[in-house]
Amino acid sequence: MEKKVIIIGAGLVGSLWSVYLSKAGYSVTIYERRSDIRKADISAGKSINLALSTRGWKALDAVGVGDEIRKIAIPMYGRIMHDTEGNLTHQPYGKDGQAIYSVSRGGVNAKMMDIAEKHGKAKIHYKEECTNVDLKKGIVYLKNSETGKVSEDKADVVFAADGAFSAVRYNAMQKSTRFNYSQHFIADGYREILLPADSNGDYQLDKSSLHIWPRGRFMLIGLPNEDGSFTCTLFMPFEGEKNAFDNLDSKEKINDFFKTTFPDFYNMMPNIAEAWGDHPLSSLAIMRCKPWAIGKTALMGDSAHATVPFYGQGMNSGFEDCTVLSDLMKKHNENWDLVFEEYNETRKADGDALQDLSVHNYHVMRDYVADPNFLLQKKIEGHFSENHPEKWMPLYSQVSFSNIPYSEAWQVGKKQDAIMKKVMGSFSNIEDIWDSKEVEDKILDLI
Amino acid sequence: MEKKVIIIGAGLVGSLWSVYLSKAGYSVTIYERRSDIRKADISAGKSINLALSTRGWKALDAVGVGDEIRKIAIPMYGRIMHDTEGNLTHQPYGKDGQAIYSVSRGGVNAKMMDIAEKHGKAKIHYKEECTNVDLKKGIVYLKNSETGKVSEDKADVVFAADGAFSAVRYNAMQKSTRFNYSQHFIADGYREILLPADSNGDYQLDKSSLHIWPRGRFMLIGLPNEDGSFTCTLFMPFEGEKNAFDNLDSKEKINDFFKTTFPDFYNMMPNIAEAWGDHPLSSLAIMRCKPWAIGKTALMGDSAHATVPFYGQGMNSGFEDCTVLSDLMKKHNENWDLVFEEYNETRKADGDALQDLSVHNYHVMRDYVADPNFLLQKKIEGHFSENHPEKWMPLYSQVSFSNIPYSEAWQVGKKQDAIMKKVMGSFSNIEDIWDSKEVEDKILDLI
Repeated sequence: MEKKVIIIGAGLVGSLWSVYLSKAGYSVTIYERRSDIRKADISAGKSINLALSTRGWKALDAVGVGDEIRKIAIPMYGRIMHDTEGNLTHQPYGKDGQAIYSVSRGGVNAKMMDIAEKHGKAKIHYKEECTNVDLKKGIVYLKNSETGKVSEDKADVVFAADGAFSAVRYNAMQKSTRFNYSQHFIADGYREILLPADSNGDYQLDKSSLHIWPRGRFMLIGLPNEDGSFTCTLFMPFEGEKNAFDNLDSKEKINDFFKTTFPDFYNMMPNIAEAWGDHPLSSLAIMRCKPWAIGKTALMGDSAHATVPFYGQGMNSGFEDCTVLSDLMKKHNENWDLVFEEYNETRKADGDALQDLSVHNYHVMRDYVADPNFLLQKKIEGHFSENHPEKWMPLYSQVSFSNIPYSEAWQVGKKQDAIMKKVMGSFSNIEDIWDSKEVEDKILDLI
Repeated sequence: MEKKVIIIGAGLVGSLWSVYLSKAGYSVTIYERRSDIRKADISAGKSINLALSTRGWKALDAVGVGDEIRKIAIPMYGRIMHDTEGNLTHQPYGKDGQAIYSVSRGGVNAKMMDIAEKHGKAKIHYKEECTNVDLKKGIVYLKNSETGKVSEDKADVVFAADGAFSAVRYNAMQKSTRFNYSQHFIADGYREILLPADSNGDYQLDKSSLHIWPRGRFMLIGLPNEDGSFTCTLFMPFEGEKNAFDNLDSKEKINDFFKTTFPDFYNMMPNIAEAWGDHPLSSLAIMRCKPWAIGKTALMGDSAHATVPFYGQGMNSGFEDCTVLSDLMKKHNENWDLVFEEYNETRKADGDALQDLSVHNYHVMRDYVADPNFLLQKKIEGHFSENHPEKWMPLYSQVSFSNIPYSEAWQVGKKQDAIMKKVMGSFSNIEDIWDSKEVEDKILDLI
């Protein structure tokens, strides 16, 4: 008998997962709440640009679809920090040649849907809202948002890849007994700003870097697009005494704010006040739940672990869910009870660590990226790591350039930070001797 | 024009609140998901007995309905602890005459619905499920579970008093932007056990006390009913090496467990293994959310702050929501925008403190109530408080026998505990001199 799987959501993770399942011999049906984004001029949802890194590429390449995404991805080899004087500081992300890759969410989503149909042989049904799921029986209840027609479908296994506001999680999982759940919106919101190409169609900033204007409690970032523009995003508290979205309620205030706080950006985009309303003000949430799988139904990607975007691991962690589930599927010979049992146990721990990492990097980007002490610490770590790669991989590299489980990376990262705090405090002239044998020996001593 | 209010849920809080609103000149419509519990032989939901204390009585008496509840309430003046030898230790709850009152949930709920109709002039519609709410417009969407008929209704203000699994919160509030929410199920479940009256119809235990069999990681409690029986409840982890519900999977194991762990209880109820399945195994959750009010709609009671039952404050805090909202309604002259703004600010803080208190008392009842040191500390506190009532009100009394806001009580309680820890550690012979001037002076010194 044919093995059948239903996936709720034709987003990034659902599309990729369909390829894995198709290759494993399953017939794949996808139900998607929206219209086909490839045919209509609609947004694939609010989003800053995405940064693909090692975990994402691994999951794509394992089923041979990485190269299709490489065509639309732009490598960023480091961060460039912009201070209020317009001075730039460069910080490489990893070793020579290591990069994270900027992709537009709309572009990658359309491409992934092509891939789902071509490589995943998936039949995608649009405008189908999931109203409920019988988690244990694997029955999905649907309502067509255009015709109003209700229907149901049944499969051997059901995967919910329907995003942060997952209908499967809200309508079925959350009402199950002993399902722990939290959605926590952080105090900061974000607004996208499109920095256009210059009059020659060229990039106004170095396209090989992610740009950050760190300003303490708020920041602006920019990621390159293929057409010469940058998708920039301002992260800032919704409310507050000053430097809050609520206070930027007139063109004059917006202009003043950018002139004073981001002068080099303002020079590139003097029409910022006019463009301010082009994108909505959006919110950011951390969502945690447990378990991720009940009966024949499992959550994947944002539906299981929607996070804040500050480590650039949202898409990558969702793609890695495919790697993990695929490995478990093979290990347990497609016994889904056992697959889901182990998924609930081990992958959930990585999901929790992902959240901790994302919040941590939010503080790093906001508060520390402009701090000379922090930059020096990172320089020492990088130097030590180059000399002792087997003894020390910086946390950012573990997360972005390795497949070490998030939970392990986070534990190691916390230990490393404790060591570095001691090292930084052990030498009064650390600025001068940062690359000395003395400092190196101290680290070796503390490891 | 007549002022109209809709209440979702004809439970304890919704029924009481209808009386307040009716007296304030509102026409009150209540939509209730279930049938009329007074006409059918159905349960009002799973629940241990409830303990009414000062906050609850205040809210009932303010609108003149306390005496109707007093008729069905049994005073409990203290705790009686049962050890494994059957030895009893008595600990009064407060000063002479202070008591908390045992009521059955079914009984008090039926009585409150009578009161809603009689004193609240409320029209209660049954079998009406709330499918959604337009929070800002005050429009409620309903579906009749018997006829399938859908309808809507609109009011000046809408209150959701529809319990821990609130439809208003799940279907409307939770999907609002920036609504923070968490539901956390604790590791322990509970099972009710009815300890019947003896063959003469008399109580088998002192009916003027709440009985506790504390056993470290788990416990049994008993509250008196009007008919000579006690509603007992076993709290215990679901899973575990031993002493977990999962392990009590045969009559033999249940008998062994009770014989060994609760011998005096077993002697009163040797048929425990047969009665084991009379009530389901149930779970316990702590729910937090923010904000409690959006637009014209506010959550009250369990829908806003469902808690674990260990401080006996679930119903009392819900009733106190009526006191608070009524005071705010008068203060702001029925300007509901201002009422809800202040409710979101101040009452939410009390809701958080209520959760902290409930979890704290869970540990007290489970781990400390049988600890001689803890009992001595409480005796010293009680003694000191009698001599200096203006300087020291024990935490339990603040919560159960006062109307001090929960947030204030919790802060004071934490300070008191820190003082007592110092006092207990300051005298090696504290057992002998617990009521001495020396100890008293030490406390006075630390306050």
